[in-house]
Amino acid sequence: MNVRLQPIYDIAELCAQKGVTQAVICPGSRCAPLTLALVRHGDITVRTFSDERSAAFIATGIAHETQAPALLLCTSGSAAYNFAPAIAEAYFQQLPLIVFTADRPKEWIDQHDGQTIRQPGIFGSHVKKSFTLPEDYGHPDAVWYLHRTVNEAINLANEEPKGPVHINVPLREPLYPVGSEKIAYSNNLKVIHAHPTQLSISEKEISRLSKKINGYSKILVVAGQDDFNDDLVKALEKFSNVVGVPVVGEMLSNLHASQSTIRHADVFLGACSDDVKKSLQPELLITTGKSIVSKNTKLFLRHFKPKEHWHIQNGGITADTFQSLTEVIKTEPVSFFKALSHAEKENNFSSQKKENFKRVWEAEEHRTVHSFQSFFHDNIFSELQIVKELIAQLPPRCNLHLANSMSVRYASMIGLEAGKKGVRVYCNRGTSGIDGCTSTAVGHALCNETPNFLITGDMAFFYDRNAFWHNYPLPNLHVLLLNNHGGTIFNMIDGPDNLPEKMPYFVTGQKLSAKHLCQEFGFDYLPVDSNKKIKNTLKDFFEFDSHTKILETESTHQQNKEAFLQLKQTIKKGYETNIRLERN
Amino acid sequence: MNVRLQPIYDIAELCAQKGVTQAVICPGSRCAPLTLALVRHGDITVRTFSDERSAAFIATGIAHETQAPALLLCTSGSAAYNFAPAIAEAYFQQLPLIVFTADRPKEWIDQHDGQTIRQPGIFGSHVKKSFTLPEDYGHPDAVWYLHRTVNEAINLANEEPKGPVHINVPLREPLYPVGSEKIAYSNNLKVIHAHPTQLSISEKEISRLSKKINGYSKILVVAGQDDFNDDLVKALEKFSNVVGVPVVGEMLSNLHASQSTIRHADVFLGACSDDVKKSLQPELLITTGKSIVSKNTKLFLRHFKPKEHWHIQNGGITADTFQSLTEVIKTEPVSFFKALSHAEKENNFSSQKKENFKRVWEAEEHRTVHSFQSFFHDNIFSELQIVKELIAQLPPRCNLHLANSMSVRYASMIGLEAGKKGVRVYCNRGTSGIDGCTSTAVGHALCNETPNFLITGDMAFFYDRNAFWHNYPLPNLHVLLLNNHGGTIFNMIDGPDNLPEKMPYFVTGQKLSAKHLCQEFGFDYLPVDSNKKIKNTLKDFFEFDSHTKILETESTHQQNKEAFLQLKQTIKKGYETNIRLERN
Repeated sequence: MNVRLQPIYDIAELCAQKGVTQAVICPGSRCAPLTLALVRHGDITVRTFSDERSAAFIATGIAHETQAPALLLCTSGSAAYNFAPAIAEAYFQQLPLIVFTADRPKEWIDQHDGQTIRQPGIFGSHVKKSFTLPEDYGHPDAVWYLHRTVNEAINLANEEPKGPVHINVPLREPLYPVGSEKIAYSNNLKVIHAHPTQLSISEKEISRLSKKINGYSKILVVAGQDDFNDDLVKALEKFSNVVGVPVVGEMLSNLHASQSTIRHADVFLGACSDDVKKSLQPELLITTGKSIVSKNTKLFLRHFKPKEHWHIQNGGITADTFQSLTEVIKTEPVSFFKALSHAEKENNFSSQKKENFKRVWEAEEHRTVHSFQSFFHDNIFSELQIVKELIAQLPPRCNLHLANSMSVRYASMIGLEAGKKGVRVYCNRGTSGIDGCTSTAVGHALCNETPNFLITGDMAFFYDRNAFWHNYPLPNLHVLLLNNHGGTIFNMIDGPDNLPEKMPYFVTGQKLSAKHLCQEFGFDYLPVDSNKKIKNTLKDFFEFDSHTKILETESTHQQNKEAFLQLKQTIKKGYETNIRLERN
Repeated sequence: MNVRLQPIYDIAELCAQKGVTQAVICPGSRCAPLTLALVRHGDITVRTFSDERSAAFIATGIAHETQAPALLLCTSGSAAYNFAPAIAEAYFQQLPLIVFTADRPKEWIDQHDGQTIRQPGIFGSHVKKSFTLPEDYGHPDAVWYLHRTVNEAINLANEEPKGPVHINVPLREPLYPVGSEKIAYSNNLKVIHAHPTQLSISEKEISRLSKKINGYSKILVVAGQDDFNDDLVKALEKFSNVVGVPVVGEMLSNLHASQSTIRHADVFLGACSDDVKKSLQPELLITTGKSIVSKNTKLFLRHFKPKEHWHIQNGGITADTFQSLTEVIKTEPVSFFKALSHAEKENNFSSQKKENFKRVWEAEEHRTVHSFQSFFHDNIFSELQIVKELIAQLPPRCNLHLANSMSVRYASMIGLEAGKKGVRVYCNRGTSGIDGCTSTAVGHALCNETPNFLITGDMAFFYDRNAFWHNYPLPNLHVLLLNNHGGTIFNMIDGPDNLPEKMPYFVTGQKLSAKHLCQEFGFDYLPVDSNKKIKNTLKDFFEFDSHTKILETESTHQQNKEAFLQLKQTIKKGYETNIRLERN
């Protein structure tokens, strides 16, 4: 037994006992004792990746997919900093990570030794807590501290809102076991169980809130990014029907399984007149989930403010996204909406008014769906078009990963129909970076057997191309790459479009296509450059054999801009028809 | 004039006036006002890169090459975190960077807006200081604060030891100029000039130190990483000759122009007996510069401790690299060694003893050079061999960039002869990471016209492949890629070599070669897999036309290990011959 390193080896056993069984490690010497302890532990699945930035995003994908904390480990030095972008993403997306960074003992910091930076607290306020373990374990309190810290870190990562926790691990040389030294894990390690808890509100509170709800005739629910939760879908559907409340759920809310979800708020709120907006203005806004993508929805609610805004969440700090927050209700959204659905309809007149308000929102939703149908009928070749085709053909059960930022915007505009209720939608909207969109999808794909589709643009795709730099096959990952050579979003938004500096300081004009990358990694390469080719290529794309597939569509900024303008006009026409109808 | 953004625009003017004229920017919307102000400023060279990690390393290369602070700019969100690895490198390598991170105004932090993280102080203790600018400039004190901050940041970055300084810039929408709005820069901006200063020591101090030097008969100088400085080369050469002191200068010390520099300490200190080491043990160790690469030199000096260790540096905190530091002498090394060279030779007997000690070191150096010659005479195909060939053929004036970690070790073992005095050697030994070695070399190549050679391994090369993901031609960058498919260093060091987990948890077994990458970027691809091919291929490699060239040598771990073992044996044989000679 290696007395000196035994507490380090036992970290693996403690993690396994606490349910942390998925580990992502990056090669290095300083982390060797922990690497070996993890690799040799029978209950832990260890995967290794060389680019720490990508590795950390892969870990967030694994944590998300497995709904358990993923363990992340790197060697000392700047390796830790390469974890940082993904750790910030995990922090804001509330995904649990246990981040171990191997370090030199503190006496060797700033002494001109290689791979030595100032690691304690390196992730700042983007971890829930940061620990640094002792250098030596001669005193039993030091061992107790290690055991307690690992327990505390995992418990904290699992506590709502979940998130990353950092443990910095100083390690003295020698770092490698001598000869055929075996690693054995200690028995009776100190385990501190944390029991899942739920915040709930009293009957009295519910009754107070029910009364308030009865007093309003214009109530709107807006759901932010959330994992699919069948109970929430049902609870919201019931709340919507019983109380008479429209529920806005963009794609990332994963509420598409409900027929009644308003999916296209972003589109119609971006197109309709202030009069229409006024008719859509809620008195009471109830929100749940994390961020929303739709800028139009945000602007609408910031300008057409509700009298009250309640946010329902299970812990953590509340964002005042629409500058109108009045009540923070810390409880499980499911139980909240269930409890409020029992509200008696005391006042028929009020009920009728609620129904009317709901119908106004539904009318806008229908108008948009109708306009979309006519737009895609006489389609022009564009990214929007191919995203629509892909979404339409998604298999009943799959993961749909959306990269920042045009990809998630395209997909959100199109939306998922209720029939696609087996589709789970993911996107790095914690920080909305392009830095790890592919890696996150890879993390998911590595630990599920369902098809995983990623829709991405060329900036996000090539930025994070090291997502593929490892030896794990990804037969269940198929990528739609919308290659417009450099940041179409800057052609779409008003500011930079007319600037002489647009190229290359906003739109990059990057020249790569995925062809060489596919050769390099042995992926199937499916290029598409016209509507004619889409159909057959998608057929191939949707076949799952043993290959990773990349369907690349190269289109020009002009094509995509024209498609957008045409869509805008079609949506506008929808209103004109309506006005005529109303006048007749 | 845009009253609201004028102070932001003026940052560009202030930077230009303060000599910050090289800017590296990453595309984004939040940073648009500063981007435009920089791009439109006639005195500032702006380059744009999409991967912030690579961009920041490119900026360190630019700062190093131009010997002036480089400006770095990114948009809000996780972009800033992607700068962090390079900022840590710049901090420890003492390179000046002015890092601007655009941010949302503080009222929008944690409000579920996209690309919003907690940016103030995000680089922790790896910047010399971190500022956050105001949101509004209505009050004149806010404008004064901005002007003062930009001045203070640039002055601080330039102060010894130089380093990165962070300015977080919250910006409100609208971010883009309206219509054909022009950017004009204000006159009479507040400029605070900082005058270069030098730390010096008194005549009395020099006399005290001179006496001490006279009292020792075994004095050793060890120089750490430093830029080439002809004055230092000459001052050390004189000190060495006049006082009788061996000067150990590995490749990164850039002291190779001096004939008398001991270049191979790492090799002979790793091979010789404790008796020899004892004969090499100094009583007084004098060091200068930053970190040293040689582990053998470190271990030697930690075990065979000098009575005194003086470190000479121009400011900053002193590392106690050999655990024997006794005097921190804060002054310019050049003036220190010049002053001490005038020390009178009071004692002939002492002088003779010093000369003897110097000769012991020189004998070891000669023995190693001799062994190397015989080793490379009956060479086997290996990475060491091709690195030696490349170094031998370097043109008189060029930059040689060495990646971590085997590349810099190979090159350091081989060393540069005095004839190559026009070669400048660079390596990211601030943090010794593999994360930006290529990007840093790209930064240099972008702002000089001399040939730039990079020697790198496959891990560092593919990790940082986005160094090439931009539209700037690099005809003056030629890369030697030592591809052994994944981290040869783990085959070389004792610990992991015999572990069953060596593959893939230490040696990665990565499968890529540079062939596809060369096709992708339009680079010349020169593969080499035998000694026979080396000669012709190197001829091509050393021709500079309009292409970036990558010479890739694929070799096995076995080949490289054998070469190493053979070298070890050759070095050992050198000692045996010597013993025989001594006995005769």
